[in-house]
Amino acid sequence: MAGSEAKERKILVAVDEGEESTYALSWCLKNIVAENSKDTLILLYSKPPPPLYSAMDGTAYLFSTEIIASMEKYGNDMAESVMEKANSLCKEVHDVKVETRVEHGDPRDVICKMSEKLGVDMVVMGSHGYGMIKRAFLGSVSNHCVQNMKCPVLIVKRSKSAAPNK
Amino acid sequence: MAGSEAKERKILVAVDEGEESTYALSWCLKNIVAENSKDTLILLYSKPPPPLYSAMDGTAYLFSTEIIASMEKYGNDMAESVMEKANSLCKEVHDVKVETRVEHGDPRDVICKMSEKLGVDMVVMGSHGYGMIKRAFLGSVSNHCVQNMKCPVLIVKRSKSAAPNK
Repeated sequence: MAGSEAKERKILVAVDEGEESTYALSWCLKNIVAENSKDTLILLYSKPPPPLYSAMDGTAYLFSTEIIASMEKYGNDMAESVMEKANSLCKEVHDVKVETRVEHGDPRDVICKMSEKLGVDMVVMGSHGYGMIKRAFLGSVSNHCVQNMKCPVLIVKRSKSAAPNK
Repeated sequence: MAGSEAKERKILVAVDEGEESTYALSWCLKNIVAENSKDTLILLYSKPPPPLYSAMDGTAYLFSTEIIASMEKYGNDMAESVMEKANSLCKEVHDVKVETRVEHGDPRDVICKMSEKLGVDMVVMGSHGYGMIKRAFLGSVSNHCVQNMKCPVLIVKRSKSAAPNK
């Protein structure tokens, strides 16, 4: 952050279970957040929405309530684990103010919606949060956000040779 | 930039004649570049390539050499004016080291190529550099760069209510 008259900024970082997201958070901590700044990092994790099940003839359900409950538990455990990892990464680098938010939904919608709702100054994210096949099907999260977000968006790509502090 | 152990960073800022680009540069100066950093800002302007002229029957040229020369002169004047404006904006905000580069070509290719060639740590740009019609035809510059660039890319959008120092 430039200047000693540093303002309080809210920086939303989209986190997920992928390495790209960890790298993006690390890059942001080392390159964007000033050490004695008043910046607040908001770590946002999007939990997949409950599975959609449609029965063509109206007689069957694809998922039993037990399966749904177990998927929900898996989602909660994953969210907790991602947030724990992200939080300790923040503490490792420097003592920045951190808030965490877990929301249900498609990351594309969740990130755009939350950035507006929270009035953040900037959004930081990895270049995608999906595997190859899922990405081709769903479209890139980062592309969607660049097109639809109203605030500055930083897409952190991990070049093969790059170390996180570069 | 975080920490007093600040590294020398090269930050490429894509500039053009549009307001979005001026806003992106201003935002970058106020939010990314630290006051006493060793950062170097590389201001990059892409001049349109010489006009392509094809004659269907091989007997005619669409542009005379005079017209091409005059378009070339217009391009040079525009590049100079954009760079002058960008340079003085940099000096207004704080005394950062600035380099300027003017290259011929489609901005999408020029920005990607130069970011690799110069080994920059980050690219900053407005959300687009074209008017509506041209953009629909050419595709968004920022989308192309987000997809093809290997380093972090910051797309600075200008929300209606945002002041440049926000």
